[in-house]
Amino acid sequence: MNIENIDVSSYPNSEKIYVDGVLHPIRVGMRRIRQYPTVTIEDGKRIERPNAPVTVYDTSGPYTDPDFSHDVNAGLPRLREEWVEQRDDTEKLAEITSEYGRKRLADKTLDAIRFPHLIAPRVAKAGKRVTQMAYARRGMITPEMEYVAIRENLDNAQRGIESYVTPEFVRQEIASGRAIIPANINHPEAEPMIIGRNFSVKINTNIGNSALSSGIEEEVAKAVWSCYWGGDTLMDLSTGDNIHETREWIVRNCPVPVGTVPIYQALEKVNGKVKDLTWEIYRDTLIEQAEQGVDYFTIHAGALKAHAALISKRLTGCVSRGGSIMVEWAVTHNCESFLYTHFDEICEILNKYDVAISLGDGMRPGSTFDANDEAQFLELDVLGELCSRAWEHDVQVMIEGPGHVPMNKIKENMDRQLEKCHEAPFYTLGPLTTDIAPGYDHITSAIGGAQIAMFGTAMLCYVTPKEHLSLPDLNDVREGVITYKLAAHAADLGKQYPGAAVRDNELSKARFEFRWKDQFNLSLDPEKARRFYMESRRNAGDGDDRFCTMCGPNFCAMRISQDVNEKCQGN
Amino acid sequence: MNIENIDVSSYPNSEKIYVDGVLHPIRVGMRRIRQYPTVTIEDGKRIERPNAPVTVYDTSGPYTDPDFSHDVNAGLPRLREEWVEQRDDTEKLAEITSEYGRKRLADKTLDAIRFPHLIAPRVAKAGKRVTQMAYARRGMITPEMEYVAIRENLDNAQRGIESYVTPEFVRQEIASGRAIIPANINHPEAEPMIIGRNFSVKINTNIGNSALSSGIEEEVAKAVWSCYWGGDTLMDLSTGDNIHETREWIVRNCPVPVGTVPIYQALEKVNGKVKDLTWEIYRDTLIEQAEQGVDYFTIHAGALKAHAALISKRLTGCVSRGGSIMVEWAVTHNCESFLYTHFDEICEILNKYDVAISLGDGMRPGSTFDANDEAQFLELDVLGELCSRAWEHDVQVMIEGPGHVPMNKIKENMDRQLEKCHEAPFYTLGPLTTDIAPGYDHITSAIGGAQIAMFGTAMLCYVTPKEHLSLPDLNDVREGVITYKLAAHAADLGKQYPGAAVRDNELSKARFEFRWKDQFNLSLDPEKARRFYMESRRNAGDGDDRFCTMCGPNFCAMRISQDVNEKCQGN
Repeated sequence: MNIENIDVSSYPNSEKIYVDGVLHPIRVGMRRIRQYPTVTIEDGKRIERPNAPVTVYDTSGPYTDPDFSHDVNAGLPRLREEWVEQRDDTEKLAEITSEYGRKRLADKTLDAIRFPHLIAPRVAKAGKRVTQMAYARRGMITPEMEYVAIRENLDNAQRGIESYVTPEFVRQEIASGRAIIPANINHPEAEPMIIGRNFSVKINTNIGNSALSSGIEEEVAKAVWSCYWGGDTLMDLSTGDNIHETREWIVRNCPVPVGTVPIYQALEKVNGKVKDLTWEIYRDTLIEQAEQGVDYFTIHAGALKAHAALISKRLTGCVSRGGSIMVEWAVTHNCESFLYTHFDEICEILNKYDVAISLGDGMRPGSTFDANDEAQFLELDVLGELCSRAWEHDVQVMIEGPGHVPMNKIKENMDRQLEKCHEAPFYTLGPLTTDIAPGYDHITSAIGGAQIAMFGTAMLCYVTPKEHLSLPDLNDVREGVITYKLAAHAADLGKQYPGAAVRDNELSKARFEFRWKDQFNLSLDPEKARRFYMESRRNAGDGDDRFCTMCGPNFCAMRISQDVNEKCQGN
Repeated sequence: MNIENIDVSSYPNSEKIYVDGVLHPIRVGMRRIRQYPTVTIEDGKRIERPNAPVTVYDTSGPYTDPDFSHDVNAGLPRLREEWVEQRDDTEKLAEITSEYGRKRLADKTLDAIRFPHLIAPRVAKAGKRVTQMAYARRGMITPEMEYVAIRENLDNAQRGIESYVTPEFVRQEIASGRAIIPANINHPEAEPMIIGRNFSVKINTNIGNSALSSGIEEEVAKAVWSCYWGGDTLMDLSTGDNIHETREWIVRNCPVPVGTVPIYQALEKVNGKVKDLTWEIYRDTLIEQAEQGVDYFTIHAGALKAHAALISKRLTGCVSRGGSIMVEWAVTHNCESFLYTHFDEICEILNKYDVAISLGDGMRPGSTFDANDEAQFLELDVLGELCSRAWEHDVQVMIEGPGHVPMNKIKENMDRQLEKCHEAPFYTLGPLTTDIAPGYDHITSAIGGAQIAMFGTAMLCYVTPKEHLSLPDLNDVREGVITYKLAAHAADLGKQYPGAAVRDNELSKARFEFRWKDQFNLSLDPEKARRFYMESRRNAGDGDDRFCTMCGPNFCAMRISQDVNEKCQGN
């Protein structure tokens, strides 16, 4: 196994920095981008004025630390292990609990593809609830909470930017359910991050093989690649072979929280036969994955038998795999979904590992025509009810949202979600604002995503250019991640999140001063920006020309504008 | 000269159709996309149900008519020539009026690059105002007005969709100034189109060489390419050599209205020396271009001397070439901009050819930091005043808008523009909603563009992935056009424009029924959609598989959903 095909050298003039905690002995990784000085000629003399470095949110984990030497067979350092141990409310298991997991472990034919350094999982001690929500409600500020408070603030303090984001504020948000920190005790490799509308907007990336596609190595590479470009969480949606082993490799090498949709694997276990699904198989799958370290589960417990009739009224039926599976199961057995009827039991499993629930939107519209219809909003009401029940078990919850929604119907989605789901974080897929651009759905959906995030959605699930058509390759993952980073950032600017504008303003200043290299380095994708620039400057050096490559040397508005400034100052 | 490198065969299963006028003997070109039938097996029998074809707006002109044989040296058919002649208010000039134009014509060294079939230009007879606004105000419904009414309605009538867009409604909108039809009497090759907030949202593409780049052939190819993919108007922003000759080739071969910024060429005429610009040189340039057939001029008459002091307060000064030139000129000469002082004279020239004015936003913000500032809004007030003055001369007007604007400040731009500029059509560049993504600014700006268009902006100026970095190549033009088509269409859906949802709904239906070919053919870029799909189906045929390439055959939500539908119907 190697992931050497991943080039992680695309952030020039940057360095990894760590900011120390105050309450806890933690160090929070960030990326600091250095800048060149502003050079002017005054009275014939060359004057250099320094430009302060810019610190940016960094999801790449140890991969971009020059002191770190990665061994994919060993996995990442177990950052949170000590924090979990010190809370003294968990214990190591002698062996894994899941029946299926034990069977895979015993299967020698799988040794060749098995992650080699398996460590015994942890579980809560009897009677304990080991979730961040449980701690927050008891008034504890955990290292995870302080970590995200520092991480969200970047170098605001340094720049004198006031921010309401303190460790205590984080605790309150977690306690109230308005935010979550997905942090399974069995995924200590992940750096804590927070999802809530009073924090910066996050993005999730999806990877995963299907029966048509890719292997373990490719999926791990995609995971690292996604974190490298800025993915805040990662969902492994594999449905093909060796899901169990693939997931282990991904989790052990992933510096961000990992989510899954356990019903996919449960269905694999019954050879794709929906009617053969049982609560017991599903339950065993939850435990199997919780003990591997999955940080959040998408659970389509709001897709009910009653939805079947509503789906048939739609233009595009049900486009959620999990939702369609559960509705088919309920119709086939003529009884209510076992995810709904066993929901409290599910919560009592999850709070032993601190797996967050992402309540799946099985009824999300698959076309703008179906947006905001009865099926969708009926399900949203059920999700609100389930959210309250999960909170009774101290389980962290977010709510999944659409989908395909025309712009005039976006705000209603947000308003209803806040009202019906008690301000639990909203996590949407796009939404796509038109159906007519397959091949460009990263863009149709970034348009909707930016808007709904400004209205209050906490995390956006990315969409790649291959949506509706094929599975993304590495280049599509990068394109999708950057597209969603910029949409999320546009929303942060739109909601005036403290410090969000620093990077924009520094980049704009660099642009105006023709500091081309700083403009590239401060951008989300420095490598592409520089490449595009150099294409038109083939015959020139790498210099900071005092004009723009679009208009050429004679017609540069910014240069003329600078000349005007100088004239005005001369007056 | 050849443009054979342009592949115009990317719209499979489509045909050019023409819809006849009722008031006038006109035929309006559109593209009709045929669909395959929906196939089901019922009681063991194969049942085919036909799907109606979908008619879409078509900006490609004769290029996609199989009966048309293009000769770039002859130019396109002169569609509107007879309409103009029959109004009997214009006359052919014995020779061109512009001094500069005559000088170029006399220069034998330019013969090699000159368009070979020059035709004498027309001008209004003495005392006549030959603008669509003048006609509309007199109660005339011109062929141009009927043409756009039919064009906007597509096949609504056929589908029983009610629409308020009648020829009389078009006339009222033009008369009131809420919409414009840019249609120079000397560009009879262009198909009429309308720009106004009560019509479908339009997009403009920019092409043009700079001192660093491209030649005539490449620019004509870009123009055809841009129309082929869906550009509604085309701005030629050339600043390099042979602007005059390049423009002639473009106009003669362009089926959509062409815009320019005459100050660029005026500046060329004084060798790039701003202080040497004069009203006389500018005036001659207006006439030169009006007689070539340019349909609208961007005129930065709102950038005043007073702006100089305000620019110096900004992070990124003035990023409009025209604006910065005029402010520098005004400061240098210590007097007001000649565009402002001679504005009535300008209008009296333009109404003799029906050149529309696009009032340039010389003070548009070049960074999100500078958005909605004093410089920008002071200029907007001036543009409102100039708009009223242009209307006194029966000159059609639109107002240019930003630029770089964070999402929370977008709506204010639209609201103020409507108020200060008396509802004249707004024409914005994006706006870009963040500054940190060079290389992806087609997306940062499509996010803002879709929003401002839903609020009422009539036309969006496209941005390509090369914005800020380089000049676009053919592929960037396509990427920019499709991105803006989808943003404009998302806005049409958002504002519930009559008939806009037909294409979305038909594509969604095709998607749900696994009619893959119809899904591709109905999309904005069928070639790319099909290519992405086929990449994951390398070993399969071109067939309509009954599953999606993303999830594979076993996990397709839409198939499961169809099965549920069948089960429910069975119950």
